[in-house]
Amino acid sequence: MSKNESLNELTNALKCLPGVGPKSALRLTYYLLQRNREGAQNLAQSIDKALNKLAHCELCNNFTEEVICSICSSGKRESSIICVVEMPTDLLMLEQTHSFRGMYFVLMGRLSPLDGVGPKDIHLNKLIKRIKDSDIKEVILATNFTSEGSATAQYISDLLKDTGIKISRIARGLPMGGEIEYVDTGTLAQAVVERKTL
Amino acid sequence: MSKNESLNELTNALKCLPGVGPKSALRLTYYLLQRNREGAQNLAQSIDKALNKLAHCELCNNFTEEVICSICSSGKRESSIICVVEMPTDLLMLEQTHSFRGMYFVLMGRLSPLDGVGPKDIHLNKLIKRIKDSDIKEVILATNFTSEGSATAQYISDLLKDTGIKISRIARGLPMGGEIEYVDTGTLAQAVVERKTL
Repeated sequence: MSKNESLNELTNALKCLPGVGPKSALRLTYYLLQRNREGAQNLAQSIDKALNKLAHCELCNNFTEEVICSICSSGKRESSIICVVEMPTDLLMLEQTHSFRGMYFVLMGRLSPLDGVGPKDIHLNKLIKRIKDSDIKEVILATNFTSEGSATAQYISDLLKDTGIKISRIARGLPMGGEIEYVDTGTLAQAVVERKTL
Repeated sequence: MSKNESLNELTNALKCLPGVGPKSALRLTYYLLQRNREGAQNLAQSIDKALNKLAHCELCNNFTEEVICSICSSGKRESSIICVVEMPTDLLMLEQTHSFRGMYFVLMGRLSPLDGVGPKDIHLNKLIKRIKDSDIKEVILATNFTSEGSATAQYISDLLKDTGIKISRIARGLPMGGEIEYVDTGTLAQAVVERKTL
């Protein structure tokens, strides 16, 4: 097996995928070589194409093949309200709810000092510039309710507090159809603290 | 998001990996684009290289960059005994045990009528030719002890029964360090049936 450099190289390369260790990388290598050469070829080409064609939207920082993405360049959306999310997938989820018709900003991450992710890495300069350059009236912080997501929201909120712009955070509480008996105590406590007057 | 063809293409291409559905494909796409462009580039190149360079060894059917792989061309191995395994990973495991110094044949699969895998798909013609062309004295069937692996072993055993060559099957029983209390009943029953006289 010693001279099969290209096999070892592919196995090592597959380890770039999150969650793929040495054993599953080897299994994937054999799978691709034996069972799905066409899929593998297509994957190689798609990676090349995506790396070459996709860049960040100048306004919202999401991936796009254009300079300004279709959401930012759409004339039909409310341009004075901007929703800050961690990842493009979060944006897609929000779009699927049809509950928000404003603009977005995608941080492409969250503050995470332990992983070496600081304010520069989540494009906060670009966000501040984006907010100051246009007539933004409200910033909705829609980062996750993890400790890192919450810290990120707090940090952005602090950065913007002197601008006079309204800052809001998406609501916490029980999920739709959530039953008190089965919800975790943290969520339940939060739902009580943040109760709404009817 | 409508015009980002290359992003959608990469997401679809990633679904060629086993166990990757639409949601994780999307997550992988963003991960590669945002966090590991270098790894992605390397992956694309490695796939191309592996697809172009690796072929099946003419003797043992394993992947190799040469015509005959290093195990088959090694003069130091016992050439009269051949061990039949399902996958290259099985061969690697056996090599790691240092318990076998003969030749191999890699089926690259197992008989699986439900998945449309028949005798032709696991290169049985090549195996039979391999056995008849050289002076093989024993064939060890080291397919898995799954129903499909066992059926494959039985099928090969039937194919070879008129040749007069010794056919053997790797042993079943309790694993090393196995405790009777915790082993499954099927394995335990088998260990009793296949007990060895001391």
